[in-house]
Amino acid sequence: MEAARSLSPQANAGEMRYWRLDKRPKIEIEDDCLSLQTVPIPALEEGQVLMRVVYLSLDATNRLWMEEIENMYMPAVPLGTPMLGFVLAEVAESRNPGFRPGQIAMGLGHWASHVVTDGEGWMALDRPDGIPLSLAFGVLAIAGPTAWFGMMDVGRPKPGDTVVVSAAAGAAGSCAAQIARLKGCRVIGIAGGADKCGWLKDEAKLDAVVDYKTENVAEALHRLAPEGIDILYENVGGDIMDASLANMKQGGTVVVCGLISTYNGGVGAGGTGPKLFHNVIMKRLRIQGFVVLDYMARYGEAWAELIPWLQKGELKFRLDIVDGLEKSVDALRSMYHSGNSGKLMVQIGAES
Amino acid sequence: MEAARSLSPQANAGEMRYWRLDKRPKIEIEDDCLSLQTVPIPALEEGQVLMRVVYLSLDATNRLWMEEIENMYMPAVPLGTPMLGFVLAEVAESRNPGFRPGQIAMGLGHWASHVVTDGEGWMALDRPDGIPLSLAFGVLAIAGPTAWFGMMDVGRPKPGDTVVVSAAAGAAGSCAAQIARLKGCRVIGIAGGADKCGWLKDEAKLDAVVDYKTENVAEALHRLAPEGIDILYENVGGDIMDASLANMKQGGTVVVCGLISTYNGGVGAGGTGPKLFHNVIMKRLRIQGFVVLDYMARYGEAWAELIPWLQKGELKFRLDIVDGLEKSVDALRSMYHSGNSGKLMVQIGAES
Repeated sequence: MEAARSLSPQANAGEMRYWRLDKRPKIEIEDDCLSLQTVPIPALEEGQVLMRVVYLSLDATNRLWMEEIENMYMPAVPLGTPMLGFVLAEVAESRNPGFRPGQIAMGLGHWASHVVTDGEGWMALDRPDGIPLSLAFGVLAIAGPTAWFGMMDVGRPKPGDTVVVSAAAGAAGSCAAQIARLKGCRVIGIAGGADKCGWLKDEAKLDAVVDYKTENVAEALHRLAPEGIDILYENVGGDIMDASLANMKQGGTVVVCGLISTYNGGVGAGGTGPKLFHNVIMKRLRIQGFVVLDYMARYGEAWAELIPWLQKGELKFRLDIVDGLEKSVDALRSMYHSGNSGKLMVQIGAES
Repeated sequence: MEAARSLSPQANAGEMRYWRLDKRPKIEIEDDCLSLQTVPIPALEEGQVLMRVVYLSLDATNRLWMEEIENMYMPAVPLGTPMLGFVLAEVAESRNPGFRPGQIAMGLGHWASHVVTDGEGWMALDRPDGIPLSLAFGVLAIAGPTAWFGMMDVGRPKPGDTVVVSAAAGAAGSCAAQIARLKGCRVIGIAGGADKCGWLKDEAKLDAVVDYKTENVAEALHRLAPEGIDILYENVGGDIMDASLANMKQGGTVVVCGLISTYNGGVGAGGTGPKLFHNVIMKRLRIQGFVVLDYMARYGEAWAELIPWLQKGELKFRLDIVDGLEKSVDALRSMYHSGNSGKLMVQIGAES
């Protein structure tokens, strides 16, 4: 009965659907790791809110939340419970004075049509003027603050610095590269394929782009940054990171935002470190990691710059919106194989 | 003729002996990489000084100077020229007003009985009160400043911090560990064997010691630092570093002083990075490398603390002095196999 209902594409009135984490992935996210469930929407208790999910943000780090990783920055999603994700939702019902029906809210929710929450970790939002809701969510929820705090708080660029961003066509990467450009830096993006590289040059207005699918990245960076890289904003790890490490300037900074090339295959079991790590000494590097969740209380600082840039069209952003909750797992998988162009999100319900 | 003379244990009056770099090492320092040469001491030109070498400091990084390594912090020693090393010498003759005969001087010299120099990169020293010359040289030339600037300028410990030092019985490591202790930190040393571990506990007064030859380092650190490591002072790299990375505290600092476990076998060809590098994100680490040569102009800051500590006996230091220039190569080789106990140096000439 449960199995039959989980195949139903739409929940009936009074029902909600969600992706349940059933098994922890080993290498790829295998087919039996998650299953789509349908359950009745529970009646709200005092203090609770029923959120109707509009958009689900898919982020590279989601893969890590499925695993039990020693020293992970948050506990693994428990087996048998809804998969977690950042969502934009509309308040459908509320028994919580902090949320009014019809309001837009953003928070750590579920891969689900609806979420019942006590409101903790959620924030009600005003619709920003002149920015489509999908774009506002795509930039302001995760990617934009990740880029802004990583670049500004960890990287600390000065005008004229040479900045390299890997996975520069990705959601956080494209914001990070443009933030550096808007701060007066010379920005080189690393991305794969003519479409992404073309967008970075023509739309995001980077100074140079390296296509790792057709170029030797280390040689290209050596040519494009003959005096060395002041700031590397790293999203990838592995060989791509090594190519940049070999081209850092003395005293340079490596902002470690993500290591997506190492996420499939068990980070917890010991991933692949940079082979050219000795450059940390040779170049006197500062290599520093961060997690955007630490900056939640300071999101306003990032938004104060990001919103005007979006309104004025100075910060370009590509959305890659997949339609329908049922496509969430396949969409996330595609991210680890560079299948997406821009910020990957799932439209689960209609904007009202 | 040249070959026969190079076997002579002592140079005659008017002659000097030196180790010449003939071939770059591949894995170990092979037998034909260096040869002992005897040549006439040249007449001094105006501005030159003849230094009679008393002590040669052997340092792990010497192995790197023999190789051509991309992005190395200084150029490789040219083939066919004297091997470089830090030495303590007595001014034998001087045509340079900055140096008087009989004065003690320290600088980047050669593995040699004598060095002719224009004095650049050398400093004349007063003999410090109450400290044997060998100890003053052993601590103040390289090991002490390396430890002091790495710990104080890069690590920046606060009283009560938990500090881990790898290769803690080595020259820089033993100073770094004791500096942290003298600054009010709780210090855990990692070393190999009962002799070194016993010295660290009984003489250097560390709070705890892990013997990597008999203990699982990661488990021991987890037990000894259950709340995590605030500062890791890393001298080793490889598995030893991974064991500490897994036990860092959120927001901790990794001072990368050396990666000795990766030096034999070709750093330039791509060494072995930390397998557990993803902790840089999970723990929001700052991983920062440094080279003591950058701090030459600031040596006085380190000496201002190190000299009184030595005079009062608060900083313990072990010297491992090998006798005779001809033993230099074997002595350096032993360092990469943990053969030395304390600061390794070669006595080349008598203290006058």
